[in-house]
Amino acid sequence: MQIAMINDRVIPYEQLEPAYLDRGLYFGDGVYEVLRSYNGKIFALDEHMNRFSHSLAAIGIETVDVNDIRDHVLDAFKKSEIRNARIYFHITRGSSSRSHSWPDDIKPNFFMTITQLEDSGKVKANGIAVSTYPDLRWKRCDIKSLNLLANVLAYQDAKKKGCDESILVNDAGFITEGSSSSFFAIINGSLRTTPLTSNILPSITRGYVLKAAQSIGVPFEEKSITTEQAKSADELFIAVTTKDIVPIVKFDDVSISDGRPGKITARLIEQFKQYT
Amino acid sequence: MQIAMINDRVIPYEQLEPAYLDRGLYFGDGVYEVLRSYNGKIFALDEHMNRFSHSLAAIGIETVDVNDIRDHVLDAFKKSEIRNARIYFHITRGSSSRSHSWPDDIKPNFFMTITQLEDSGKVKANGIAVSTYPDLRWKRCDIKSLNLLANVLAYQDAKKKGCDESILVNDAGFITEGSSSSFFAIINGSLRTTPLTSNILPSITRGYVLKAAQSIGVPFEEKSITTEQAKSADELFIAVTTKDIVPIVKFDDVSISDGRPGKITARLIEQFKQYT
Repeated sequence: MQIAMINDRVIPYEQLEPAYLDRGLYFGDGVYEVLRSYNGKIFALDEHMNRFSHSLAAIGIETVDVNDIRDHVLDAFKKSEIRNARIYFHITRGSSSRSHSWPDDIKPNFFMTITQLEDSGKVKANGIAVSTYPDLRWKRCDIKSLNLLANVLAYQDAKKKGCDESILVNDAGFITEGSSSSFFAIINGSLRTTPLTSNILPSITRGYVLKAAQSIGVPFEEKSITTEQAKSADELFIAVTTKDIVPIVKFDDVSISDGRPGKITARLIEQFKQYT
Repeated sequence: MQIAMINDRVIPYEQLEPAYLDRGLYFGDGVYEVLRSYNGKIFALDEHMNRFSHSLAAIGIETVDVNDIRDHVLDAFKKSEIRNARIYFHITRGSSSRSHSWPDDIKPNFFMTITQLEDSGKVKANGIAVSTYPDLRWKRCDIKSLNLLANVLAYQDAKKKGCDESILVNDAGFITEGSSSSFFAIINGSLRTTPLTSNILPSITRGYVLKAAQSIGVPFEEKSITTEQAKSADELFIAVTTKDIVPIVKFDDVSISDGRPGKITARLIEQFKQYT
């Protein structure tokens, strides 16, 4: 008899529910998005749906109508009545017996949660401490996939060090991005961030940060920096969907801009509010 | 109200079952093993349990007693009464709301299946065709983790080309291993395979192949080869737990050893039987 075991429970293999046969679980064979709403309005929905389409195409999941997903997001968000919501969804290739191959008629699984977003006022006002970690990730970080163990290990390291985010550093000594955020520096009055390649996620929030910089007249350059350059930068911050811009006040035990959120960062945070 | 959606079904978030909150699904935050039995006897159980311990430690899952897992495997295998079984199990960090961080008291999830292994006599007798694909994986392939999307994409490419396995090639042009197998070449009577580094899995079957080579007097060298060297090799084969040694008769459209399984490969297959 074919058997399955879920923790201490033994059941016939044939009675396994689809959740336990999800290729998302066995292989991380799926892609996801995280969105948020500000005061009842979903931010940058079109941009997120576009990126999701790209991710689906990149891993060859071809049978999903992204407009249906968009409708699901809007309907469920309305139903939730949460004003500041975190919207997470993923699509996996589907459920089937574990094998690198899959049946031709496999049906993708959709999963979404809409939950209350924690208030980020405090971290935005006080700034965060970050630590660095080797960027161990795969070569297609432009795909927003469920393969995030390298990010988890990096974050775990930061947490052990009492930090709030881990900043990833590649073999050449350049910062790529945070474990779940984009990374920015202000050097001599100019904004610097990693250029978009297959090594980093094309962050939606990153795009809005650059737009904000342009609006308030802060010059910017898409060029990677080293950890040494980061330590001597005038200001540092990360950007992430759920909190937008968050100042960094400590980088690997080095105080940044006297341990207080930087002035240009503050102006960018103000400008960002225009878009939400 | 916090909401979850599973395909078309909307439920309150609080009613989500642990399977939908598994960090294995969200992040691939877990490690696994695949074992097989030959005629009622599990092959290389100790070696697999050892490797599993290393994988757990490498990702910081510290609360699992591997002896308990071993007992589960033995009990369930006995109960299954399957003589040639595929035994798959994984442990994930546990279930909690999706966040890179996790609660201190999170409890790992164990999952196992014991299923009937398909007969591999035909592929072993006839050999398989393989194609090459860039090795896009992360930098810790020595950890047997649930982050396998790069492997899936490689396999998908092979399948499209009518091949049975994808052979991964790194940026320097060297073969690392297959998408779910180790890779071997016979060149001038000598066995060649990739050395064990963090770029490949420390395959148990690989270890037994080297042992077999030693037993029958075939010299071996742990040194990577290029795709060009593979194309002109005398013989090629892969090794994988579920089928042990499988000859390669075609490599990227180039016939290997006249399109028939090689003679030294056949001797290694015979010797391998001694161990099972």
